[in-house]
Amino acid sequence: MAGELFTQLEQSPQGLTRPLDEVLDALQYNDQGLIPAIAQDQQTMRVLMLAWMNRESLERTLTEGFACYWSRSRKALWRKGESSGHLQAVREVRFDCDGDAILVIVDQTGPACHSNRPDCFYLCVEDQQVRVTSNPV
Amino acid sequence: MAGELFTQLEQSPQGLTRPLDEVLDALQYNDQGLIPAIAQDQQTMRVLMLAWMNRESLERTLTEGFACYWSRSRKALWRKGESSGHLQAVREVRFDCDGDAILVIVDQTGPACHSNRPDCFYLCVEDQQVRVTSNPV
Repeated sequence: MAGELFTQLEQSPQGLTRPLDEVLDALQYNDQGLIPAIAQDQQTMRVLMLAWMNRESLERTLTEGFACYWSRSRKALWRKGESSGHLQAVREVRFDCDGDAILVIVDQTGPACHSNRPDCFYLCVEDQQVRVTSNPV
Repeated sequence: MAGELFTQLEQSPQGLTRPLDEVLDALQYNDQGLIPAIAQDQQTMRVLMLAWMNRESLERTLTEGFACYWSRSRKALWRKGESSGHLQAVREVRFDCDGDAILVIVDQTGPACHSNRPDCFYLCVEDQQVRVTSNPV
C-alpha cells in the first residue's frame, strides 16, 4: 500500500534513502491525480504561491530543473513562466511526511504572481479587514 | 460571483481593505468545503506543514489565535497541538490572489510534525533518491 512507504520513512533515521521512483509511485495523488505544491523562494524564504502538480508535471520539474505545474483552469501542463519569462529554477524538491504535499524551493525570476506582485499571498487579515499588502512591480 | 472579489482585489493598490466576512464568503472552498493551508514558522521562515481548513476552522483560527485545521482522516476540527501541546500561535493569516490557498504564519511550540520532526517536509529529492533529512527531536 502506498501509505506504508511513508510510515516506514517516518520511522527511518536521517540519511536513509529510497529510490525516487518508488516514492513517486507512493505519493498520495488526489482523485484528480494532483498534489498541492508550495513554491518557496530560496533567498527570501517567502512562500511564493501554491499550485498543483500531477505526476507528469512533477517529473518534468525534476528532470528539467524548472517548476512545472498542472493548470486546473486550462487542464494542461503549465511550465511556470513559459509565457511571462518568470521561471522558477528549482533548488530543492521535498515531500511531506504522508506524501500528500510537495515543497519546491526555487530561485524566482521576476514576480511569482500573475498579478505581477512578488508573491501570491498579498491579502492579509488585519482585525476584521483584509488588506492588500503589495503593489504590482 | 465569488471569484469577482479576488479579481477586484488583484487590481487594487496596496493598503486597500475589504471586510473580512466578505472575503471569507468569497474564498474558493473545494467540493469538500476545504482550502489548503500552509503553516510557516515566523522565526525560521521554514514551511512547517500543509493542512486543510474549512470555514469553521479558519474562523476559529482567527478568533482563537491558534491554528485550527480540518482533519480529513478524522473528519473533525483539529486544533493543532490540542493533544500534543505543539500549538501554533498565529501571527498572520494571508490569502492568495485567487482565494484558494491560505498562508498561516505562526510561532510553533515544539515539533510541527506528528513524527516529532521540526517540520513535515523532511523527504528531499537528491538525484534519483529521496533522503530523510531530519530525525525526530
